[in-house]
Order: sequence, then structure tokens, then C-alpha cells
Amino acid sequence: MLPDALLQLTELLARLPGVGEKTAQRFALHLVAEKSGTAQALGVALTELGQRVKSCERCGNIAEVDAQKRALCAVCRDSRRDGSLLCVVAKVQDLLAIERSGAMRGRYFVLGKLLSPLDGIGPSELPLEQLFKRLADDGVREVIVATPPSVDGEATALLLARELSARSVTVSRIASGVPHGGDLEFADQITLGRAIEGRRNLDSR
Amino acid sequence: MLPDALLQLTELLARLPGVGEKTAQRFALHLVAEKSGTAQALGVALTELGQRVKSCERCGNIAEVDAQKRALCAVCRDSRRDGSLLCVVAKVQDLLAIERSGAMRGRYFVLGKLLSPLDGIGPSELPLEQLFKRLADDGVREVIVATPPSVDGEATALLLARELSARSVTVSRIASGVPHGGDLEFADQITLGRAIEGRRNLDSR
Repeated sequence: MLPDALLQLTELLARLPGVGEKTAQRFALHLVAEKSGTAQALGVALTELGQRVKSCERCGNIAEVDAQKRALCAVCRDSRRDGSLLCVVAKVQDLLAIERSGAMRGRYFVLGKLLSPLDGIGPSELPLEQLFKRLADDGVREVIVATPPSVDGEATALLLARELSARSVTVSRIASGVPHGGDLEFADQITLGRAIEGRRNLDSR
Repeated sequence: MLPDALLQLTELLARLPGVGEKTAQRFALHLVAEKSGTAQALGVALTELGQRVKSCERCGNIAEVDAQKRALCAVCRDSRRDGSLLCVVAKVQDLLAIERSGAMRGRYFVLGKLLSPLDGIGPSELPLEQLFKRLADDGVREVIVATPPSVDGEATALLLARELSARSVTVSRIASGVPHGGDLEFADQITLGRAIEGRRNLDSR
């Protein structure tokens, strides 16, 4: 019933994260009916994407491809960053969120995935060898594990702590607790438990 | 912080229906990190889309562009269809759903939008002139209004009924009631009201 070109487009759009077949068809039909040339512009942007943007070869962040066809991200190129401080994150979005906070003066390492036994992701799926190489190359002294405070994120943090304990680096974990502006009344038990456990001295000196 | 090519791609992806800036960025980052060439394939499919697929010039359905660069959909090309029966729908997805039911032996007319005063869509935004021309060209005798049983859909159905009353066509509306397999206990009041109102004689002769 539907033209082949549309079925093919739908199939490709359904590969986007969180997009099912119905949503993909809705996108495809929208792009056909739409008159302002979005389909064409998007087509050109996607065709050129591989030549213009890649994952940073050092940290996995998004990076612009330079004239030598190398991809180093803005953070890795920035010489003012403290190379001895390395923040390990699960995905690029998390790196961007931490950058927006302005609280990180070191560099990053994007894991790309988290330990997840249910999805068949074990320790061997994680880029640990690249991480160890990075520690040696940069002379890293502290690793801040900024994986999310979820089951998979905590499991990954524990694995990293164990794997890194043999090397001469300090491993720290981002704090977990009641978020800024949050209401204690509506915080869940685990969050409150962590907030109490991770309490700090209020030193007024 | 992010490369221009990625920001531009995010902006274009955010034009898809129901996609906000966050989701668009998620799509864009996925396409950069992903290794199986989806970005490239999608780029080619989108660039070619305009030459291969268009809205059908008669009914607004999706149509393959032929060698003469004309776009007539499968339904409009099918000579076994009853041209005197015209089904008016809001969008292509609704047309596809009715086709899947196999219950429609006539042809279609896709409005593309519904009356919606809150969104500033009045009668003049609807393609009524094209619809009238279609009625005359095809010698239509019955128009089945298959807009959805929502506020906008019902308003559009009423407008069509009024506009078509002056012309010598029968105007009918698809039935609204408890869906097949539905439970009366959980049906809403309006649906049940309509089911009672639209009751039919059970003639066992």
C-alpha cells in the first residue's frame, strides 16, 4: 500500500532511540507532507555528519573533525584543563550537563554504556583498557565516578572502584542526596537514606 | 561547546512532530556515536525523498512519483474503486487505518487539518475548494465524513455537513460508540451516550 521509499525511510527512522514503528511512520509522513524543505535539509545535514562530527578519540565526547581528519573535542583541546583530574560519565549528555554546572575543571572519559547483567553487558563490554591507558598517558591522580545513582550506575561505580584500587589513583563518587530545591517530604526512601549517610560536617569556623 | 554541525542537526530534528530540543539532541548524539551507518543511509533516503514520494495530487494520500513526475496514489490509480463514494479523513494515517479495515470501497480525500479555533485554524484554512472540485470531477454521490470523534473532528464534520448540504450529495458520519472488545464498565459517558443514541434495529427476520 505504501511506496517503498516511505517504508525504507520509516525503517531507518525507527532505529532512533525510543522511536517505534508508529512514531517512525508519523515522522516519515510528516516529512513527505511538509513544504518547507526540512526533509532535504535534514538529508544534507545527515549525509555530511560523518565528515564533520565524530566521537572524540580521547574521551568519547562529541568533537568537530579538523583539517587533519582528527577528532579532538573542545575539552581535550583546552590546555587550561587539569589533566590529573578525570571524570568518568556514562554518556555524552551527562558530560554536557556537568559542563553546564561549571564545577568540573578536569577532563572526561565517556564509558558509552553501564554494567547491566540483564541486558548482557558485563565488565568486558566496558572500555576499561582505554580508561587505564588514559590514566597512564595523562598522569591522572583522581578519578571522579559520575555514573548515575541508579542500579546500573552504582554497579559500574563499584566495578571501577575495584579495578582502580590497584592503581595509584584516588577514586571518588559524586554525592547523592536530596536535590537543590527538592522537598524532603516527597523524596524517596533511598534518596533520603543516602542524604543522611553522606552528611557532611557544617563547620562554621 | 557543541560543534555547529551537531547544533544544526538538532535544530532540524526538533522540527519532527512531538520532538523537543532534548529528544532532538538525543537523536543527534545517537547518530554521531552509532557505527552501522544509519546517519548516512538516512541522509540519502531523505535527500531522495522529494523525488520519489509526494502527496497524491488528487486526494493527499502518499504517492510514488511516476516517470512523468506525477504523483497519483494506489487508491486513486485503482480503477475498481467506486468513484461516487468519497471518504473524508483528517490525516494519511487515518486513511491507512481505514484501508487496513477493508471496509471502504470508495476513494478518499485527506483534509490535512481539522477546524481548531484555539490554534487559529478556521474554515478558510481547510481545502474546501479542492473538495468541491473533487465532488464535481468524480460525480460523488456520498461523502463519508471520517474525521475523529474529538471536539475538533466533530466541529469539522458539522462544517462539512453544512457546506455540502447545498450540493446534491448524501453526507454520512462514521459511527461512534463502544469499540469492539471494549468493556461498557470502563467506557466514558460521552462514548456510552453516543452508543445509545446511535443504536440500530436488531432485525432478526
